[in-house]
Order: sequence, then structure tokens, then C-alpha cells
Amino acid sequence: MNFLDLIEQKKRGTELAEEPIGWLVDAYCNGDIPDYQMSAFLMAVVWRGLSDSETAALTRAMVQSGERIDLSNVTAPRVDKHSTGGVGDKISLVLAPLAAACGCAVPMVSGRGLGHTGGTLDKLESIPGFSTDLDAATFGRQVENIGVAMAAQSDDLVPADRHLYALRSATATVEDTGLITASILSKKIAEGTEALVLDVKVGSGAFMPNLEAARALADRMCSVARLDDLRCRALLTDMDQPLGHAVGNALEVEEAIDTLRGKGPPDVEELSVRLTAEMLLLAGLACTPAEAGQLAAARLADGSALQVFRRMVEAQGGDPAVVDDPDLMGMAPEQTSLSALQVGHVLGIDARLVGEAARDLGAGRRTKEHQIDPHAGVFLHVKSGDPVDADAPWATLHHGHGANVDRAVDKLTEALRVGDQPPSPRPLILEQVE
Amino acid sequence: MNFLDLIEQKKRGTELAEEPIGWLVDAYCNGDIPDYQMSAFLMAVVWRGLSDSETAALTRAMVQSGERIDLSNVTAPRVDKHSTGGVGDKISLVLAPLAAACGCAVPMVSGRGLGHTGGTLDKLESIPGFSTDLDAATFGRQVENIGVAMAAQSDDLVPADRHLYALRSATATVEDTGLITASILSKKIAEGTEALVLDVKVGSGAFMPNLEAARALADRMCSVARLDDLRCRALLTDMDQPLGHAVGNALEVEEAIDTLRGKGPPDVEELSVRLTAEMLLLAGLACTPAEAGQLAAARLADGSALQVFRRMVEAQGGDPAVVDDPDLMGMAPEQTSLSALQVGHVLGIDARLVGEAARDLGAGRRTKEHQIDPHAGVFLHVKSGDPVDADAPWATLHHGHGANVDRAVDKLTEALRVGDQPPSPRPLILEQVE
Repeated sequence: MNFLDLIEQKKRGTELAEEPIGWLVDAYCNGDIPDYQMSAFLMAVVWRGLSDSETAALTRAMVQSGERIDLSNVTAPRVDKHSTGGVGDKISLVLAPLAAACGCAVPMVSGRGLGHTGGTLDKLESIPGFSTDLDAATFGRQVENIGVAMAAQSDDLVPADRHLYALRSATATVEDTGLITASILSKKIAEGTEALVLDVKVGSGAFMPNLEAARALADRMCSVARLDDLRCRALLTDMDQPLGHAVGNALEVEEAIDTLRGKGPPDVEELSVRLTAEMLLLAGLACTPAEAGQLAAARLADGSALQVFRRMVEAQGGDPAVVDDPDLMGMAPEQTSLSALQVGHVLGIDARLVGEAARDLGAGRRTKEHQIDPHAGVFLHVKSGDPVDADAPWATLHHGHGANVDRAVDKLTEALRVGDQPPSPRPLILEQVE
Repeated sequence: MNFLDLIEQKKRGTELAEEPIGWLVDAYCNGDIPDYQMSAFLMAVVWRGLSDSETAALTRAMVQSGERIDLSNVTAPRVDKHSTGGVGDKISLVLAPLAAACGCAVPMVSGRGLGHTGGTLDKLESIPGFSTDLDAATFGRQVENIGVAMAAQSDDLVPADRHLYALRSATATVEDTGLITASILSKKIAEGTEALVLDVKVGSGAFMPNLEAARALADRMCSVARLDDLRCRALLTDMDQPLGHAVGNALEVEEAIDTLRGKGPPDVEELSVRLTAEMLLLAGLACTPAEAGQLAAARLADGSALQVFRRMVEAQGGDPAVVDDPDLMGMAPEQTSLSALQVGHVLGIDARLVGEAARDLGAGRRTKEHQIDPHAGVFLHVKSGDPVDADAPWATLHHGHGANVDRAVDKLTEALRVGDQPPSPRPLILEQVE
């Protein structure tokens, strides 16, 4: 096969068949297609788009590029969740053990992208000793025994995605929904899940800025997943303000543990329970949304989800005492409090700016090589609708000595919008897509 | 400046300013921009196009990437011609000495592209001893003394074009009119010409398959040339059948010499005189098209163009005796004649298929490394409208021992269309663009 012909075809908008797509992924991974040809192809894909069947073929080819985790010993229904990423999004830390406590097997493999704050892996690594590097056999055994494992994508899992993602980042070819879909679904299929719930974030702190774009991505992912025999449904959820109060790695682990104890912020609990309920429906462990929601809420309330979390921490080498005393994770050496300049009600707290402030303080990565400060971050004492005044701090910055606090303060100050009247409440869950 | 941002801007269709375009050409030539980023940018350019001012800026930046030939000692008006390429196109061999005989200085630098038959340089190299590798000083002196030099693009002349062209060929990003325009005009500006006549070929044997595409390219080239202070006009000319009778390197030199002796095929003479007349008008050596045409025809008829050709051959190391006896170039060891299967009149001879047949016999290159056989080619005994029958050959194949004659014969047989009645005559010159 001739890759130049395939670039030409895609450039003209021709739909490619399964065979050439399989060939090109294989040839690229083998080094037979140079980066400079692949990047021209990727730009042609951004131009012309990928059809659902092209995307499904690309997903399959990417899965084929590496190993698949063998979960054939796991008898429980395997189901996972993926979020497109947001600020303060610690939902996985609550949901994965909760779903396992409800009878699911949750084989959660995560990448380690760039972001305002660390990803799920970085958050977990705030727990002393916690390892996210599990080999496939250990991962499989843990899913079998505890019902959940949360680990980093190994080099053997969908290597095509690693190669392609690095090239896409360097060539302004990231945003095509087909490429995004194939990247996400290939990793989920390779990790061995049978069903997937998607949390597609919408708003200033999300990759997708508006409802239309988020809906298009959710539709696309659900359609392609079906073609690849993965049961899938999606929720579009609000990311105009951060989730919960905590933004930063150890801070978010603490808030997730609070939520697992039934003492978390209402929005974190609501979204964790709702997404878990969707997982239970997909897994066939509940027949109606009401039943699924009740089961999830019950397992959160009776402490069994917290118990699964503790077992997972222990199994992955972490200090289980952290679950009872999150202070054992340690704390940033400095805290800086921020008071509101106006008296009134919070109209909104811009998630993107809060995320950038947290990153400036050291909670997130600008480059792959960047070392994250697990204790850095921002704690928001208020949420949209809450009253603020000049006397009580509305945010506390957690940071190391010598951090660039001024810049973070500027961003947070810009992020807070205050008005005389509280705003009308905005729903957390905007839409459902199947 | 950040190239990723520029890719992003071009991808969104934003017009780029002169400064970033200059920067990116410079950075690419210095190796600061990797091929994989440039190819993504080039595909975004094919997608979104380049405006005239972007193209003019790109042209200037490409000129800046190398040396410019210094022709300040040349007092005659400097004017050149460029053809987009066709089958049997030996016009430059006639026109360049003819324009010089009329008082122009013709600094003709050519590239060595891939094609069905060799380019002008390959044709000239059929003449024993003829060298197309002239250093800039020798080139300039020859233009000053003889009025014409025909040489290969040196490594110092527009290196950006060589780098970009190689990448475009490998990434299906050749056909954007902006990129084509910048590639052609940058070389012409760097060679030191002040004015340029374009011969944009239209038809089966041309790069531009239809009149609309050819017109768009001609318009674009003339507009951009104006922005870069190069006087320019274009003719759109027919390339549905090959020019003249000869297709192949030595065969075409012989036909060009015949034309310089006033004994060439009518179409080759007509187009050579007409394009030369356009050069004279641009050079200010004639005031009206009629005057320009008469001057060119007179210099062809009185043998002074042939005389310039002879002096050029001698100056560039070639054997001038070839001008009097083209057989000195030698001949292919085998000739195979082809008779028509039908009696009737020639409706057409498909130029692309004739070109491919000549290439199959060894006259053209498939890859850069391919060695051309100077004697290989096809001689067409008939042109559109001529009668054919089974008794007289309509084409003769010139080839070496062991050449793939069957394949060439099949293509030629497919190329010839015969009907009962001669077709209505088709004009050679289709349109003029300024």
C-alpha cells in the first residue's frame, strides 16, 4: 500500500476502508511511515473529518498496535468511566471504588496528560507509597480480587496512541472528534472493559467550550463505541465552575475521601453517584435509573465504597492510614488567603482561571518533564450562589516557598464574579447521550 | 515566534502577515522547524489556501533563503518564460535564442523535475558536451555576451524551494496554487529576470486538467508577480495532444533545430513565435502585438535565432556541429513502427498517454535517481486531423534493446482516436491573462 495515495484520498475527502487504516497504523508504529507524512495525513483528517466507520477502524487498529489486558478471570461485569477532564475533577477516586462496591469490575487505566492540575494518577500518587505502575498480570488480579485497579497506561498498551498523540500535540491536529474518540476508546478497549460511561465536560474549564461541541463528541464516541462492541453512554456535565472545593492533588484526594465518608461537597457526591448509576445500568446490575441511583447511594452511605478504596490503596502499596487521616499526606508549607473585594453573592468562579492558578502554584504540568507539587493547589471556600464579604477568605492558596503567588492571586481575583443577588441555580448534569 | 501557533492560525484560515512567513521559511531552512510540523502546515495551506499577499510574502522569503544572480552588467531587458510543462514541449529551445536574437537577455534557470519526458536541461544534455551546470558568474557573463544562458538551478538558488518541494512531493501537498506560484516565481526572481511570460498548459498532458484551474493559476501568478515587482503575463495553451511530432530528448532537440531553421512543425513554430512576441512586449522591445510578432518571425526566418542557439551550445561546451547535423547526437538502437488499426482521420492523440509511453521507453524519470535515455522516445508521424491507414506508420518508437515496448505500444494504441471525418480544428492558444 502507498501512504501518499492515502494522504491524497483523505485530502480529497474520500472515506478510507478498514484495511488501509489498519495498514497505516501498523506501518507508522513500525517506522515505515515517517512523521512528516503522518502529520500531513492528520491535518487532512482535521480538514475532512473521519466517518464513524473510519473512526471505528482506526480504534481497532490502535488496539491491535499493542497488548490487551486479559481479564478473562474476572466474573463481574467490567465497566469503566472516562472524563474529558475538568478542574477539581476527582470523581474517579470516588466512583471507581463505589462502582466496585456495587458489584462492577473497574479496570481503570489512565494516561498522564498535560493539564491544569494533575490527572487521576497524580492525585493517587499524593498518597505515600501508592504505585500506579502495575504490570498487566498484577492489574488483572487486583481487578479480580478487589473489583478495581487504577494504573498508568503501560508502554505495551496502545503504543500507536502514544506515538500519534505526541505528533498531534506538535502539529495542531489534536481537536478532531474522530481522532479524540479513537484515542480514548482504543485505550478503554485494550484495558479490557466491556462498557464505558463518558463524562463530557462543558464550559470554561473544559476542552469542549460549548454544548454543541460536547454533544457532537459524545454522539461520536457512543456511535463509534457501538461499532467496536463497547456499550457506551455519556453525560454532558457542567465545568463552568470547578467541581467541589479542592483543586490540587493531595487536596482533591482528601475531598474524595470525605465524599466516600458521606461528607463531601454536594456536587462531587451528586456526580459520583449519578455516573456510578450509569455504570450499573450498563453493567446490568440495575434495571432502572432509580434502582441504580439507590444502589450507588446506599453503597456510599454504608461505607463499603470507602472500604474498597482502602483495600485498593493497600494493594497498590499506599499507606492505608491516609484513608483515616488524610493529613498524613502532608501539607504545603505556605497558605495564602484571599478575601473578596466586594460584598455580595458568588455569580460564578471561572474554572479555567482557577485551574491555571493551581498550575501556576505547581499543581499541574506545563511540559511532560514538569514535576508536580502534590501539596500545591487552591481551596475554594465558596461555590456559586454563596455569600462573600471582605472579612472571610473565599479562597486559600496552598504553595511552596517561592511559588509565583502573585500571578495565581491575579487569576483567582479575575475568576471570581460577585453580584448583589445569587444567580439562578445551574444544573450540574446538562444532558444524557446514548 | 511559535510555529505551532502559526499552524493553528493557518488551520483556522487566518491570513498570516509578512513577518511570520519570513520567519517560518528561515527557521525551516535552518532546521529549526522539523519536517513533521512543516508538512502539517503545508496541508493546512492546501486546505485554507494562501492569499495573494501571503503568496507574495512567501515568494520573497524563499528568494531570501539563497543567493540572487547578479545581472547588473546586463544592459538588455531581462525576460524569461516558464511553462507548467507538457508532452513534446521543446518551446524553450527555440524561444530562448529567438528572444535573445530580438534583443532580450534571457537568464533561463530550470529545475529538474520528474516528468513524462525530461525537462529542458535533459533535452540540452542530449547534445554531446553540453553542460547545464554554470556558476553564477559564468551564467551572468554568458547572458551579457550571448543574450541567453540555460542552466540548472544551483544549490545556492532558492534552497527553501528545494527543501519545500521535496516535502510537498512526499506529503500530497503539491497542488495549491499559492505554493506553486511561490515556487516558480521565487526561482525566476532569484535568477534575475525582470519580466516573465507564463505558458500555462491545459489538457490531458498538462498538470492543470481544465481551463478553470489553468486560469486560476495564471491569474494567481500574474497577481502575485505584480506584488513582487515582476512584470508578468500568461497564455493558456492546448496540451490535449503533444506539441510537434517529437517526444523524447534528442528527438526534441532535433525538432527544435528544425524549427530554428524554419522547417519545424507549424504548432511548435506558432507557439514559439507567439510566446517570444509576449516577451518582446513585456521587455518594451515592441509596442504592439503585431509588431512583436513580426519581429520574432523575422529573427526566426533570417537565421539569427539559430545563430544564437549555436553560440549558446558552443559557450556551454556542446558540440556546435550538432546544429548542422543533429544525427551527431546519435540514435536509439531500435525503432518500432506502429500502424493504425483503422482507416480514417485522427480525432486526437492523448498527450498524457504518449508521455507515459515515452517515459516507459526511457525518455523520462520515475524517480530522481532514474537515468534518462537521451535517444528514447516517440515520433508521431501524424497530428490531429491528419489521415491514417493501416499501411503507413502513424508513430515510431525509439528505444534501447530490452525496453518495455509492449507496454508503450498499448498506451500509444490507446492514445490514438480515429474517426471517419476530421475534427473541427482546435486553437493552440486558448486565452491570454495579464
